[in-house]
Amino acid sequence: MEKLKSHQSFSGQTEFWKHSSKQTGTDMKFSIYRPSCAVEEIKGGLIWLSGLTCTEENFITKAGAQRILNELNLALVCPDTSPRGLDLPGEHESYDFGSGAGFYLDAQVDGYKDHYRMESYIIEELYPLFDQMFQLGGHIGLFGHSMGGHGALTLGLKNPEKFKSISAFSPIVNPTGCAWGQKALKGYLGEDQSLWIQYDACELVKSGKRHAQKILIDQGLADEFYPAQLLTENFEKACKESDQKLEVNYRDNYDHSYYFISSFVEEHIRYHAEFM
Amino acid sequence: MEKLKSHQSFSGQTEFWKHSSKQTGTDMKFSIYRPSCAVEEIKGGLIWLSGLTCTEENFITKAGAQRILNELNLALVCPDTSPRGLDLPGEHESYDFGSGAGFYLDAQVDGYKDHYRMESYIIEELYPLFDQMFQLGGHIGLFGHSMGGHGALTLGLKNPEKFKSISAFSPIVNPTGCAWGQKALKGYLGEDQSLWIQYDACELVKSGKRHAQKILIDQGLADEFYPAQLLTENFEKACKESDQKLEVNYRDNYDHSYYFISSFVEEHIRYHAEFM
Repeated sequence: MEKLKSHQSFSGQTEFWKHSSKQTGTDMKFSIYRPSCAVEEIKGGLIWLSGLTCTEENFITKAGAQRILNELNLALVCPDTSPRGLDLPGEHESYDFGSGAGFYLDAQVDGYKDHYRMESYIIEELYPLFDQMFQLGGHIGLFGHSMGGHGALTLGLKNPEKFKSISAFSPIVNPTGCAWGQKALKGYLGEDQSLWIQYDACELVKSGKRHAQKILIDQGLADEFYPAQLLTENFEKACKESDQKLEVNYRDNYDHSYYFISSFVEEHIRYHAEFM
Repeated sequence: MEKLKSHQSFSGQTEFWKHSSKQTGTDMKFSIYRPSCAVEEIKGGLIWLSGLTCTEENFITKAGAQRILNELNLALVCPDTSPRGLDLPGEHESYDFGSGAGFYLDAQVDGYKDHYRMESYIIEELYPLFDQMFQLGGHIGLFGHSMGGHGALTLGLKNPEKFKSISAFSPIVNPTGCAWGQKALKGYLGEDQSLWIQYDACELVKSGKRHAQKILIDQGLADEFYPAQLLTENFEKACKESDQKLEVNYRDNYDHSYYFISSFVEEHIRYHAEFM
């Protein structure tokens, strides 16, 4: 573990870290927010999963979360969106596959399967590290944006005992049914579509996965990727038919950007804080 | 005038514009925030001047200002920090001169003098455009960061009738006395140091320039450029000796970054709003 940078922010600290990951076999970077209160007064923590092309830096510089996190005595961690420093076949050729596009899954295809293990990285490595770093006692919520919204929904539904609450901005809810998802699932998992459904929030709910708390989603109606890549209504339908509690707020005029996220991040953070 | 992008933000709009500038002889870009209220309900506007290497995008994506601007019914404009699209001698060779480093002055040296006219651009062109765009009736405050803090102090002191209030984060208060300033002043104005002092906030106050309101400055004490490039105490001394009202808040542990700006931008915006 190496602290790369630290910036005082709203009386707490925004920090950038690097560590050697056993899951990915590479160094992984993440940012954290450390509120100004004593560690024993920290109420809980949030894991944020970013979208395509992002690093550990986007959310922590653009979302404006620190003010609210410090007010509520919450810690935050934002991991990078893929391993880095590799040169796998096709890894750096497109924005929606490979570097910057890990999709929060464990790859099965040769080459990728040894490194692109973002699901195991988040659950087995980053989660316990974050929990221990701030003595959270499992008071951890999970949220994310777009590909990271997909990560939040799928990892949250598969690990409801680890995450007290789940929320998402503009999530890819049904990757088996959209171009982004199909490219990633095929590229990381291969042709066998029976492997794909464990990384599809709609399919997970249909197959019986549940979270005890209401899942919160915000979706902009001027989002350039809505509905084709996001398919929000499919998740509404799946949750309704499966009695999974869900609140989707469709927001007129908002797009897919951090201008949207920053406008509603306070509501999401306060929502998660209720369960800590 | 061409609107390049628009993003709904905190119920208002974050917009990016381009226009043809008579002063610089180039296209110039700026960002604005348009609060959600009706134009006739807008209380006033703020001009933000950014620091070295910045464009019209940094402040509007990183400072977290929109929430407060919308709450207070304030508009905002952030110009780019220099002309672009030129290829003058030495223009693109260093981060602290030429592109991204206009220093909010009117250059006198050949080549630069026809384009690097950021002082006249801000005062003669952007100010009336912004005033008219939002029907502000001159209810305009001026603030900025580092090189842009220098711009806010110097342009504000030279045009006290145009700006209701002035504030700055980590400003270069005494450019004739620091390396950044000397390089820029020599490069844009030439060797004659009698020309330099009109672009030095300390010298302006000493020569009798005043603003009716207290000037507000925030300065981080872990700022990597403090005190060598910023020389904050020189401005305190000059203001004290000249009866210019000034409040300098030295902030323990804060650095020169947007993590610092975002932590105190609400205080600055609320300060400016008092005078509108």
